[in-house]
Amino acid sequence: MEGPDFTKGLVPAVAQDHETGEVLMLAYMNEESWQETLRTRRATYWTRSRRRLWRKGEESGNVQEVVDILIDCDLDTIVLKVRQVGGAACHLGYRSCFFRRLDDGDWEVRDERVFDPDQVYRKQET
Amino acid sequence: MEGPDFTKGLVPAVAQDHETGEVLMLAYMNEESWQETLRTRRATYWTRSRRRLWRKGEESGNVQEVVDILIDCDLDTIVLKVRQVGGAACHLGYRSCFFRRLDDGDWEVRDERVFDPDQVYRKQET
Repeated sequence: MEGPDFTKGLVPAVAQDHETGEVLMLAYMNEESWQETLRTRRATYWTRSRRRLWRKGEESGNVQEVVDILIDCDLDTIVLKVRQVGGAACHLGYRSCFFRRLDDGDWEVRDERVFDPDQVYRKQET
Repeated sequence: MEGPDFTKGLVPAVAQDHETGEVLMLAYMNEESWQETLRTRRATYWTRSRRRLWRKGEESGNVQEVVDILIDCDLDTIVLKVRQVGGAACHLGYRSCFFRRLDDGDWEVRDERVFDPDQVYRKQET
């Protein structure tokens, strides 16, 4: 199986709710995270800011179980259809990282928080 | 209104069917394409291969009318909810560029062609 083309660098991966189709987030993959995603069926990315493998949910517990994997015509973008454990993909506590929509020239919050990020991420430190 | 953050380079934009939620394609924007998208309400990208502004549909006629614009928590990814004129976003004639899904270790075509790319793109040259 020809995988994604990593020769030009990281490959964007769109995580989409497998039931509602809502776009939850976009992150990046390198070859290693791609292979781990295939093997574990849990979304694993590469964080550009921390420059390391990022097992989504490793801190919050909100892992993404991979239901389906799609690839685009150019083999340089991935869509993961996922089951989002905990109901929220965004580290700010929203279901989707795309919780703002443009409304008459301003960003409007279109969603409500599922969790309080202070609670979820503080827990990890104790 | 604080727009997307272009200071680190191009920003990925996910085009999603505004009714079905299907992810149609992913392309990139620079500041100019973002501004033109806002102004014209038609998806305008920046092609990395041809290094120029790309008015989606300029050759095929299959433009994307922008219904809604979302932005993510980091302000570095955009989702466009679009009405895809002609019914197909992919230059290969499929509704979505993500017409292949992973099935038991192989890519399986999950969709049927809406148009024959030879017909659509040849027309432009006459």
